[in-house]
Amino acid sequence: MTAQLQSLPPGLTNLEDHATQAQTRMDEIAWAYFSGGAGDEYTLRDNRDAWTRLQLQPRILRPVARGHTRISLFGRTLEHPVLLAPVAYQRMAHGDGELASAYAAAAQGAGFVLSMQTSVAMQTIAQAVQAEPARGPMWFQLYMHYERGFLLDLVRQAEEAGYEALVVTVDAPTSGVRDRERRSGFRLPDGVSAVHLAQQYRQSRQLEPGQSALFDDLLLAAPGWDDLAWLKAHTRLPVLIKGVLHEEDARIAAGLGLDGIIVSNHGGRTLDSTPATAAVLPRIAQAVGGRMPLLVDGGIRRGTDVLKAIALGANAVLIGRPYVHGLANAGAMGVAHVIRLLRDELEIAMALSGVATLEQVSAELLFRNS
Amino acid sequence: MTAQLQSLPPGLTNLEDHATQAQTRMDEIAWAYFSGGAGDEYTLRDNRDAWTRLQLQPRILRPVARGHTRISLFGRTLEHPVLLAPVAYQRMAHGDGELASAYAAAAQGAGFVLSMQTSVAMQTIAQAVQAEPARGPMWFQLYMHYERGFLLDLVRQAEEAGYEALVVTVDAPTSGVRDRERRSGFRLPDGVSAVHLAQQYRQSRQLEPGQSALFDDLLLAAPGWDDLAWLKAHTRLPVLIKGVLHEEDARIAAGLGLDGIIVSNHGGRTLDSTPATAAVLPRIAQAVGGRMPLLVDGGIRRGTDVLKAIALGANAVLIGRPYVHGLANAGAMGVAHVIRLLRDELEIAMALSGVATLEQVSAELLFRNS
Amino acid sequence: MTAQLQSLPPGLTNLEDHATQAQTRMDEIAWAYFSGGAGDEYTLRDNRDAWTRLQLQPRILRPVARGHTRISLFGRTLEHPVLLAPVAYQRMAHGDGELASAYAAAAQGAGFVLSMQTSVAMQTIAQAVQAEPARGPMWFQLYMHYERGFLLDLVRQAEEAGYEALVVTVDAPTSGVRDRERRSGFRLPDGVSAVHLAQQYRQSRQLEPGQSALFDDLLLAAPGWDDLAWLKAHTRLPVLIKGVLHEEDARIAAGLGLDGIIVSNHGGRTLDSTPATAAVLPRIAQAVGGRMPLLVDGGIRRGTDVLKAIALGANAVLIGRPYVHGLANAGAMGVAHVIRLLRDELEIAMALSGVATLEQVSAELLFRNS
Amino acid sequence: MTAQLQSLPPGLTNLEDHATQAQTRMDEIAWAYFSGGAGDEYTLRDNRDAWTRLQLQPRILRPVARGHTRISLFGRTLEHPVLLAPVAYQRMAHGDGELASAYAAAAQGAGFVLSMQTSVAMQTIAQAVQAEPARGPMWFQLYMHYERGFLLDLVRQAEEAGYEALVVTVDAPTSGVRDRERRSGFRLPDGVSAVHLAQQYRQSRQLEPGQSALFDDLLLAAPGWDDLAWLKAHTRLPVLIKGVLHEEDARIAAGLGLDGIIVSNHGGRTLDSTPATAAVLPRIAQAVGGRMPLLVDGGIRRGTDVLKAIALGANAVLIGRPYVHGLANAGAMGVAHVIRLLRDELEIAMALSGVATLEQVSAELLFRNS
Repeated sequence: MTAQLQSLPPGLTNLEDHATQAQTRMDEIAWAYFSGGAGDEYTLRDNRDAWTRLQLQPRILRPVARGHTRISLFGRTLEHPVLLAPVAYQRMAHGDGELASAYAAAAQGAGFVLSMQTSVAMQTIAQAVQAEPARGPMWFQLYMHYERGFLLDLVRQAEEAGYEALVVTVDAPTSGVRDRERRSGFRLPDGVSAVHLAQQYRQSRQLEPGQSALFDDLLLAAPGWDDLAWLKAHTRLPVLIKGVLHEEDARIAAGLGLDGIIVSNHGGRTLDSTPATAAVLPRIAQAVGGRMPLLVDGGIRRGTDVLKAIALGANAVLIGRPYVHGLANAGAMGVAHVIRLLRDELEIAMALSGVATLEQVSAELLFRNS
Repeated sequence: MTAQLQSLPPGLTNLEDHATQAQTRMDEIAWAYFSGGAGDEYTLRDNRDAWTRLQLQPRILRPVARGHTRISLFGRTLEHPVLLAPVAYQRMAHGDGELASAYAAAAQGAGFVLSMQTSVAMQTIAQAVQAEPARGPMWFQLYMHYERGFLLDLVRQAEEAGYEALVVTVDAPTSGVRDRERRSGFRLPDGVSAVHLAQQYRQSRQLEPGQSALFDDLLLAAPGWDDLAWLKAHTRLPVLIKGVLHEEDARIAAGLGLDGIIVSNHGGRTLDSTPATAAVLPRIAQAVGGRMPLLVDGGIRRGTDVLKAIALGANAVLIGRPYVHGLANAGAMGVAHVIRLLRDELEIAMALSGVATLEQVSAELLFRNS
Repeated sequence: MTAQLQSLPPGLTNLEDHATQAQTRMDEIAWAYFSGGAGDEYTLRDNRDAWTRLQLQPRILRPVARGHTRISLFGRTLEHPVLLAPVAYQRMAHGDGELASAYAAAAQGAGFVLSMQTSVAMQTIAQAVQAEPARGPMWFQLYMHYERGFLLDLVRQAEEAGYEALVVTVDAPTSGVRDRERRSGFRLPDGVSAVHLAQQYRQSRQLEPGQSALFDDLLLAAPGWDDLAWLKAHTRLPVLIKGVLHEEDARIAAGLGLDGIIVSNHGGRTLDSTPATAAVLPRIAQAVGGRMPLLVDGGIRRGTDVLKAIALGANAVLIGRPYVHGLANAGAMGVAHVIRLLRDELEIAMALSGVATLEQVSAELLFRNS
Repeated sequence: MTAQLQSLPPGLTNLEDHATQAQTRMDEIAWAYFSGGAGDEYTLRDNRDAWTRLQLQPRILRPVARGHTRISLFGRTLEHPVLLAPVAYQRMAHGDGELASAYAAAAQGAGFVLSMQTSVAMQTIAQAVQAEPARGPMWFQLYMHYERGFLLDLVRQAEEAGYEALVVTVDAPTSGVRDRERRSGFRLPDGVSAVHLAQQYRQSRQLEPGQSALFDDLLLAAPGWDDLAWLKAHTRLPVLIKGVLHEEDARIAAGLGLDGIIVSNHGGRTLDSTPATAAVLPRIAQAVGGRMPLLVDGGIRRGTDVLKAIALGANAVLIGRPYVHGLANAGAMGVAHVIRLLRDELEIAMALSGVATLEQVSAELLFRNS
């Protein structure tokens, strides 16, 4: 299986154009699944708006020649701070699915986080991109609410396939109230499935009267901090947790020796009415105090957003929906284009802000309107 | 008379869907009556927006298994903190009227507050639901501005029929400026009436020139705190007051030994331009200091709203319009569906916020954006 | 000349309805003239929005029986605190013009301020309403940028005709940038004129190159504080100034012994981008410290707005556009209806706020959201 | 070559009307080029909104007769504080291009800043307007990122042609992300070019793998403060820098002995998400402390905006798009009309605010809503 090269349709000037065009290419169910959020989608919108509300106060006439967007993460140098977030079932967006996304990431030097719910096998992906000279890191994402034996097996597979870190999503012990998705009558199309999760669908318990299908059944498998500690002890890979929104939880993670934090509200897909990630990021950065890498996702659509995230204390950012839009629009070529657009915009934002490297960026760059 | 079981129409994913669909089922007058507010409906909108503006800052990896939504109120354990607020003339929304609503409440373990202006007799309702095993408490709502003899008789009827508390609405010594209702040319349809208020319509006084029909006639019957004290002395039931928006009034109520407070602006139907109930709730909670149960209504449409209300200090919440929409859409089945949706959303919101019980919820759960 | 009684068209529930309907009755020029503001009409909208943003925090179970809306002003008792502001050329809105407005004001106990640019003679109006038993005060408005001889003659006419106070408009040494009016191609219709200003149109001076038609010609006639002192010395009537927006100017007025202040930005018709009158009112109230009556206009459309104005320190309010709408809709009957609606809403707002008289109203009634 | 006099089309009441009408006269590419901004055009809108949000708190009854709008700048007296900002390729908007704009500026006493990317030769323009009796100053704008020899030659030409100051644009070491312009498929029409920049298009460097076309090629020519110092040392003209948004950079400029600062974000055309110029102006004014003239552009559309800019500490303002709209609408006549409208509005705003001269204007005139 190889990602098909596909030519880029015209009219794609920025990530918003990719979204607009992707809506015309996906069927209604796929669009609802990928673009929808929880509840009234307040957090989904606020994620975006929170970046927009922040303002950059640029400096002039500073030395920017020979600047670059490089960052260092877990001992590797990355060409730029944009990673692709884990997104399930990408073959719903395009036949090549996660393979195309990973391939584009590799070509563009972007880190790639493969979802446990991938619709293409992790080994297939790893082999296909292994040889790309400029490729960024490949990480594997997982949920803890599965049996430990199954999880360990998955972790071993990831280690052997060459994935370089584990990302544990901790903000979804249950699904959010995804009304748009439910209204669409969501079901996986024929031929698309979570290839590593076959037979993993758990049997519902028999409930007594007055018991809750959530609290008294599903959540019996909800993970705790000890599960994270267990995982950390059973893998040689760095372990990041994704879904942190509270500074106290960041402190706990640091105390447990975890290796990284991804500030995220799951793209507004779990609990509607959380703060935007841009709103909690500075508090978490302060709590972590540089003890481990800090990443953020949610609503990043412009190079200026990336720069703002760095200014608020992030080491790198992840994008989700935008690259799925690129995928729907033109397969690997579309994903590569989305990454390239964002990176080019970041370079321009840096040059126009008077910073040559991301190390020079701090909260000083943000305008305090008071 | 028995509430008809009716099947649920498709497309009802959340309470907003119920509202949208109900508008197509009610005639214009009924819609204007139930959905309209006072004046420019600023308070009506602000009630809703104030919950939306509040943000939850969730915790992760906390023990939530075997959690529950139960609360304790006046010595009873309720399955969840959602009650049905008193709403008049429910037979305008559906032929089964209050009977269907009470039946659905009983089936879903929700408390039910019957309006003094019920269009089905309180005894009929009490008998119909008495035997429901999981039913929540039945309370009776009344206005004080009628003759004491008549009131006492009504109170006795409620006591004998098994109602467990009295709710006195104190925020409407006169009706609000309900322009939408007036524009619709409101009148009760044939066959719908306030069955306990026959012959209770008071005669207007003859006014002298320069006198006000409001101040010099209608308001002569407006109740005071002493009327509340009198009522408290003449019933064995707990007495709650509904319509408190000021912390000082909450202190007075506590000082008088009243049994509970419902923070309410009458769903935006009386004085337009009051604060949203979410805005005054924390002050009133502080004033009450746990001396008596505190409930709140107005704009609650999501499980996250319920959770926010608890976080601001409420013991429970009431919904009004949403269950009338359910009633219009599918009778008792529709009301039950509305309660169920809200309770399910509350469970999910709790799980995703990292709280297992409502007792664990405090203002700490709310994000302070400062 | 007598104001024709005219029946009220249906569908007029509130002042906004009057506006909507009036637009269909006036020709485009009249509508642009009466409803337009200066510049981008920011102040026009903000006047309205500023009242809306204020919130009332009502008290419950207070004694409101036998309450009333009466106020005391310059030694007279007024039935309620609503006056009609000076508006020019009212015969553009309805053939009866100012006569109808004055007649309606008298019938409804409202104070009436006749514009110097009235299209009906002040004597005609005074005689027509003199005998109305419940009539409120009649005041006469004037601009100072006319010759003193002419002004004195006008003042004497007003004194003799029975006008009880002089209102000097001080915020318009020149007209505002009234773009909507200019776009409409404004001109007075045949038969409508400022009946007291015949032959008062001043001749333009011959300007030298580089001189400004405004600064070097028109503004040579702009009045100063000394002109106000002169007027005060030459009339036995109380003198109010209208158009105060700065607390310092209020202090100066009080120091000069003027008799009253009207906080106004000319209904947003002069300088666009002034603060809303509701925003400056409390500062001016504090500066005046009760030394003289304080009135306010601009954006008052609801009884709750009147109550808020009193709470911010005003003794009374004026309305402008709303009564012109009533005038266009049904002559004197329409104006009376507008006043009545506002007064009824005020009574209801008082009753629902728990206040029996306007003397009980203070800033305590306003909710401070902090 | 002479600017054609052209009659003014009807319906142009203010600068917004000019914009609306200009859109119908320009082709799509020209409209996108002149009216578009960078990115999501947030800064473009915010520039405008920031002036609107500021409120003037006018004083009354002050002496305004014989007032004027004159200011003093670099030893010259200007009739008013409105200058025309440098705008490239004006022959795209109208055949007469920069010649018409300069001619209109001269006729209206407005300062004119000619863009280095002018489509009409600077000498042609200088000769055409030299004789206008009331003309304001002519300045020449340039970018530093070209060879010094070429720049010196250009500076000498400007000096000889009679330009009175140099304006160095420092906020665009690279172009912004001008999506609207890119979407339009921008290209210069036949016959329009930057007449002083022929053969100045630099050759791209050959990049190594992993190098950035921006950081490793284009920005090698990006100027620094030393380049400004060099320029200052090589011309007898005052040197202003345009594009300052940070108070620290203003301090550096003052320390280097530069002659003036233009607070600007390039009309929202470079870095989207900078603060509005009105937001940074007061800080820069404080940093500069009167040591040199301070000008501002971005979003000025009303005389009240000009007055607000002066109140925040600017000595003068520049307009860009509005005069290009006038140019498109009626050539020199249209530009003159735009300047006249703004000046007339400024006079009216001053008179209605109670100020006779701009020297009397300070931050006191602004309402602080706190």
